[in-house]
Amino acid sequence: MLRRVLCTVLFVGALPSLAEASQGHISVVLLGATGDLAKKYLWQGLFQLYMDQVSSGHSFTFHGAALTALELGQRLMFDVLKKLACPPDESPNRCAVLKDQFLKLSQYHQLKTAENYTVLNREIETLLRQEGLKEAGRIFYFSVPPFAYTEIARHINSSCRPPPGAWLRVVLEKPFGHDLASAQQLAAELTSFFREEEMYRVDHYLGKQAVAHILPFRDQNRRFLDPIWNRHHVERVEIVLKETVDAKGRTSFYEQYGVIRDVLQNHLTEALMFLTMELPANVTRAEEVLQSKLQAFQSLRGLEKNSAVLGQYQAYANQVQEELQKTQDYISTTPTFAGVLVHSDSLRWEGVPFLLTSGKALDERVGYVRVLFKNRAYCTQRETLRDAGHSQCKAKQIIFYIGHGTLNTPAVLVSRNLFRPVMPEGSWREAVGQSDLHIFGQPLSDYYVYSPVKERDAYSVLISNIYHGRKDFFITTENLLASWGFWTPLLDSISHQPPRLYPGGAENQHLLDFEMVSGEVAFILAEPVELLNPNKLMPSDYRTIQSKFRQRPLVSAWSEDLISQLASDIEQTASRTVARSGQFHLALSGGSSPVVLFQRLARHHYAFPWKHTHIWLVDERCVPLTDTESNFFSLHSHLLQSVRVPYFNVHPMPVHLNQRLCVEEDRGTELYAKEIMALVANASFDLVLLGVGTDGHTASLFPHSENGLEGAQTVVLTESPVRPHQRMSLSLPLINKARQVFVLVLGRGKHDITALLSRVGHEPRKWPVSGVNPSSGQLVWYVDYEALLG
Amino acid sequence: MLRRVLCTVLFVGALPSLAEASQGHISVVLLGATGDLAKKYLWQGLFQLYMDQVSSGHSFTFHGAALTALELGQRLMFDVLKKLACPPDESPNRCAVLKDQFLKLSQYHQLKTAENYTVLNREIETLLRQEGLKEAGRIFYFSVPPFAYTEIARHINSSCRPPPGAWLRVVLEKPFGHDLASAQQLAAELTSFFREEEMYRVDHYLGKQAVAHILPFRDQNRRFLDPIWNRHHVERVEIVLKETVDAKGRTSFYEQYGVIRDVLQNHLTEALMFLTMELPANVTRAEEVLQSKLQAFQSLRGLEKNSAVLGQYQAYANQVQEELQKTQDYISTTPTFAGVLVHSDSLRWEGVPFLLTSGKALDERVGYVRVLFKNRAYCTQRETLRDAGHSQCKAKQIIFYIGHGTLNTPAVLVSRNLFRPVMPEGSWREAVGQSDLHIFGQPLSDYYVYSPVKERDAYSVLISNIYHGRKDFFITTENLLASWGFWTPLLDSISHQPPRLYPGGAENQHLLDFEMVSGEVAFILAEPVELLNPNKLMPSDYRTIQSKFRQRPLVSAWSEDLISQLASDIEQTASRTVARSGQFHLALSGGSSPVVLFQRLARHHYAFPWKHTHIWLVDERCVPLTDTESNFFSLHSHLLQSVRVPYFNVHPMPVHLNQRLCVEEDRGTELYAKEIMALVANASFDLVLLGVGTDGHTASLFPHSENGLEGAQTVVLTESPVRPHQRMSLSLPLINKARQVFVLVLGRGKHDITALLSRVGHEPRKWPVSGVNPSSGQLVWYVDYEALLG
Repeated sequence: MLRRVLCTVLFVGALPSLAEASQGHISVVLLGATGDLAKKYLWQGLFQLYMDQVSSGHSFTFHGAALTALELGQRLMFDVLKKLACPPDESPNRCAVLKDQFLKLSQYHQLKTAENYTVLNREIETLLRQEGLKEAGRIFYFSVPPFAYTEIARHINSSCRPPPGAWLRVVLEKPFGHDLASAQQLAAELTSFFREEEMYRVDHYLGKQAVAHILPFRDQNRRFLDPIWNRHHVERVEIVLKETVDAKGRTSFYEQYGVIRDVLQNHLTEALMFLTMELPANVTRAEEVLQSKLQAFQSLRGLEKNSAVLGQYQAYANQVQEELQKTQDYISTTPTFAGVLVHSDSLRWEGVPFLLTSGKALDERVGYVRVLFKNRAYCTQRETLRDAGHSQCKAKQIIFYIGHGTLNTPAVLVSRNLFRPVMPEGSWREAVGQSDLHIFGQPLSDYYVYSPVKERDAYSVLISNIYHGRKDFFITTENLLASWGFWTPLLDSISHQPPRLYPGGAENQHLLDFEMVSGEVAFILAEPVELLNPNKLMPSDYRTIQSKFRQRPLVSAWSEDLISQLASDIEQTASRTVARSGQFHLALSGGSSPVVLFQRLARHHYAFPWKHTHIWLVDERCVPLTDTESNFFSLHSHLLQSVRVPYFNVHPMPVHLNQRLCVEEDRGTELYAKEIMALVANASFDLVLLGVGTDGHTASLFPHSENGLEGAQTVVLTESPVRPHQRMSLSLPLINKARQVFVLVLGRGKHDITALLSRVGHEPRKWPVSGVNPSSGQLVWYVDYEALLG
Repeated sequence: MLRRVLCTVLFVGALPSLAEASQGHISVVLLGATGDLAKKYLWQGLFQLYMDQVSSGHSFTFHGAALTALELGQRLMFDVLKKLACPPDESPNRCAVLKDQFLKLSQYHQLKTAENYTVLNREIETLLRQEGLKEAGRIFYFSVPPFAYTEIARHINSSCRPPPGAWLRVVLEKPFGHDLASAQQLAAELTSFFREEEMYRVDHYLGKQAVAHILPFRDQNRRFLDPIWNRHHVERVEIVLKETVDAKGRTSFYEQYGVIRDVLQNHLTEALMFLTMELPANVTRAEEVLQSKLQAFQSLRGLEKNSAVLGQYQAYANQVQEELQKTQDYISTTPTFAGVLVHSDSLRWEGVPFLLTSGKALDERVGYVRVLFKNRAYCTQRETLRDAGHSQCKAKQIIFYIGHGTLNTPAVLVSRNLFRPVMPEGSWREAVGQSDLHIFGQPLSDYYVYSPVKERDAYSVLISNIYHGRKDFFITTENLLASWGFWTPLLDSISHQPPRLYPGGAENQHLLDFEMVSGEVAFILAEPVELLNPNKLMPSDYRTIQSKFRQRPLVSAWSEDLISQLASDIEQTASRTVARSGQFHLALSGGSSPVVLFQRLARHHYAFPWKHTHIWLVDERCVPLTDTESNFFSLHSHLLQSVRVPYFNVHPMPVHLNQRLCVEEDRGTELYAKEIMALVANASFDLVLLGVGTDGHTASLFPHSENGLEGAQTVVLTESPVRPHQRMSLSLPLINKARQVFVLVLGRGKHDITALLSRVGHEPRKWPVSGVNPSSGQLVWYVDYEALLG
């Protein structure tokens, strides 16, 4: 049959015959030729490629393939091909002739068994030989579910490779895994069959004209952007894909993936990279772009549970139950809406919020990337009296408008008070008119607006890029794994988190609005009461309770409230002490519990008299101060680098002297003891903050320790049962000289020791913390409900 | 005549007679009784006081005084008094009776000679004795030019003091000096006559209802404001007083003062203080408020020339020439418009821009204080589909609307998406209506709007506060001097700077718009060509010149430009070095020259990679690091405490070990050498900044030094010819290993050594700096014109 088709082709003299093609022949094999994606986009993209490249010197054949038997498959496929449309800018005559050609160059194959692949390969070889054609390359487009990838890849690798000198390009469609591990596994399998340069992983967002133009735009407008494309000028960036449709009919896929895997991990992340990466010298060189991108991934701050807000449209649960035959009590936590706050710690972007948002069943269909600049201007004249010129007091934005929405076309918008952008004349043109439109709070006339000269479907762009070997439009293995590496911790941490339910469409109102607070995001509106689980008690329902623990004052609450109470109490003590004596000597413990306290002090206590505060360490691990295991390092990261304690007032323990760690003869303990004696009146700290270990240790004073539980030595070296073993610690007698001691105990893991301590007396050798007993100072226990009540 | 008046009063039975008053008698003396201010505001204010307090138990007499002879003065004064208006909320009958009373209690005095004062005093005494009245106090209101203050004060002090047990209050009107020195002098003079608690310095802005309510508002809304009244939530603050009038007819005053002295130094600064000060526990206690205010002044960052943009309306020059009989070539640099960027370095406000703006001949008359909050929200629903609720995505503002403008009434506005404010019910009420008004970019309906129940003129508020002894509404000497201390350096630095000319009124358009860049402000539009003085050379017309000094590159300019060039060069070196090697090792010298450099780096170089910079000392004096003589202390004060260099990256010289200073056996030099070896690759600093002494010393390497000029030792102890003698220093061989060395030489005092160095060769024993000669690195000389040219 191929023979017959070719003969017909050769018979039409007006078109280049295969034999005339000097550049060689390209065979395109579309696997899943009768599937949805193929029907909707891929065949049209291949037809567009043929129209564009028919005079390029290459000859083509197009092979549809599927599991369906030959005759049925043929019929299904040609039904699709007959509907191929001519683009509006093509002359109808030429198009009709080309479409006829394209149909004749296309044929269907059943590809099921190993033999089918061998036959396909033989047919291609035979054709080329008969026509005397040199083979340029083969494109295999995988439009099939990912579970079929490995099998097909194996067959192609073993039976369908072109001869030496001709290239192989396999095109893969997402999903490329489900998390980092599965993506690694899939990547490893594919890598065993194909070389990296043979694989073209599609993210069709890279074919969206506005997204594809981000890097060229940054490159061509370097002169304007260089001074402002950074944290000093950018206020925030929004990367948004909103859909009105829901997941109905697709829940078998969607229930496994959810919006983060479906949209954020790939499409929005790629846009994010184009924005944040350092511009390579040549933005069309795939390798340079990739290296910049990988560096940008490295700079991303890790995501935590509270980096995201999640929603699920209300009808989703029923759709899942029906489509997947689940019982009524099946609960899905798959998010259909997500808003994620991403931060880059690069010098360029530190502190700038990048908001990635996507969802189904929202109020509108729209995609955009919006860069909002800070407004640093003051306009002396009042607004109504300003002339038509473009005031510097209006918002300054650059928007890559991906499509749909108010504009309903891809576009690049630049506020007129920023600069007139350089745009490539052949492919983008300045748009005019529609001055009554408002977009992002401003009339369209406030922007320079550019739209593509020729609007092109993403797949037609991508298929053309496959043909041209433009690998910078595709996702490499490294890029893919970097992205999964970034998203997987968030996906893990939210896997059981119930998303907020939303009604869908315009009725969502403010329900999905969220805000950024201290590097986290949260919905602005409280959970609507009718959607609340009535059994769930909110932390704020409990007030901190005060009573006694070990005959001393006890403050107890849920941990969040407890920490905020403790932070306030510390600030109050500090202010009073500074008012009285001019300085405040605070000794802090290491470990994990104080971290939240440090963060709270750094972020919420602006009136804290840091300038008059001396910071001492209660204990330290014998590692260099710059080691992440060091207590001081943690204190520095979470507190000191955010507040202004004078350098002289910071007193890390000297565990690292003469480039050695805690060597007895370096006399670190004596040095610290002397420093305390010299600066702290009577060596009596104003406040010592302690924790408790599950074994009853406090500071670095462990059960049955030889040092520090009694005696005259104020600073001691001790041994911890866990690594790093060597420690330095204040001694119990020194701690007990303090004016005030707060002990912080957090979490269910501390319940047993808390219960035990409530019963036992003064037995510091067994439980060192039981020896904390300030001789003339005050001791207060801060124990959260989980530790107290289990 | 007084007698007759009193008799009449006593005759009217319906009113309390003087004799019945149990609280005692108050005599009010208004000096300048027939002047403009008295006519316009003060008599009305005194009448209002009388109406309000007639039943308070105090009796009153009102004494107008001026230099005018008795009969004319009497006539002039009573012409004013007859026109006194009754407030709209007062019943006409009561008002008419009270006004009649008030006229009868008032009389005119000529106060010119010492004897006049003695007579006045005697009359008051006589009256009181005759009526059997106890004296409560006396108010002397100075509505006279400041040159008359001292004379009048002397007379009052010597002749008109009330007897023991009664108080004296003298009320003073601005201007209170012209700069810090003149204000100090005036204050000293007044203080020789009056006690601090006797002086009531008026800033009538403190009587504006919206300004007077800032502190009470902050106090009553602590619950809402506590979390957001800080740098994390406030984006900017604007304090604005715009006028449409110009200075015509007042140029003899205005030409001496200008807008900064007339409006910013007093009115706008007081509003600034109310916003920035920490709230005292009791906001009605003058002493607590004063202390907080003084602290807030201390936190203000010093102003520099570029902290302000200045303008002058075009007609001003002619007005001055005409009114002051100046010649055509007289050029006034008095600003009639100023926009000033103020920063507070307090923990609460660090980084938040406070924009103080005022001017004459602008487009509208309006005064306001506007606090704009950061927008941290993302609203998922598109704007047109949101319901009437108040979206968190709209701007969040709190506005103290002083008056005039669009609203034309004092008001407090709070965005509805912030909180519903607590307002004192008796004095402020919620305003309704006028929903078509827009204010600060939003419809009025977006705000909670409160206006005073009873609109009161500022002077009537202040006179009432004088009566009540509410000193918190007045400017104390300390407050006044703190304000002048803040403004005087700016006034000095701009005294010869030509302001931008503006046409006036709505035609100003964007000419006075300005923007903030790196902690400075600048007009946005370039200077219009036609307004430029072609003969005027601006400092920026001088470019830094580059040539050679001692065969090495020389950068030279006036010192300010030189420092800014040097700072930029250091930043550029830092950024490049970090990009290459991940860290930047910077060794800095002590002394006075680098201080301006440190300040420039701290304030204007936000992109400096401090996080990756290591700070080393070139040399140190053997004093504790906390000693003000310590190089490190100076470096810390002027640079380190303002930037975020990690603790571990700061490397002071160990001159203070074991509580001893530079003791050889403590091996401080070895310790530092080891630290350098451990952290700096090849012990080759990326950049060493040096200075030069008049004796040719550099670092702490002095002529004929025994150590450090050659040999293998990298860190040495040396002896300085001046105290403190003992020093620690990097050695010349170590310095010469650096990749880059910059030598900074500033000031006329360095001209001789500069001239000498330009001639001599390599003679480090005579002039150590001549031995600076990086073996493979680069050396650049930064020498200002004064040092270079003498």
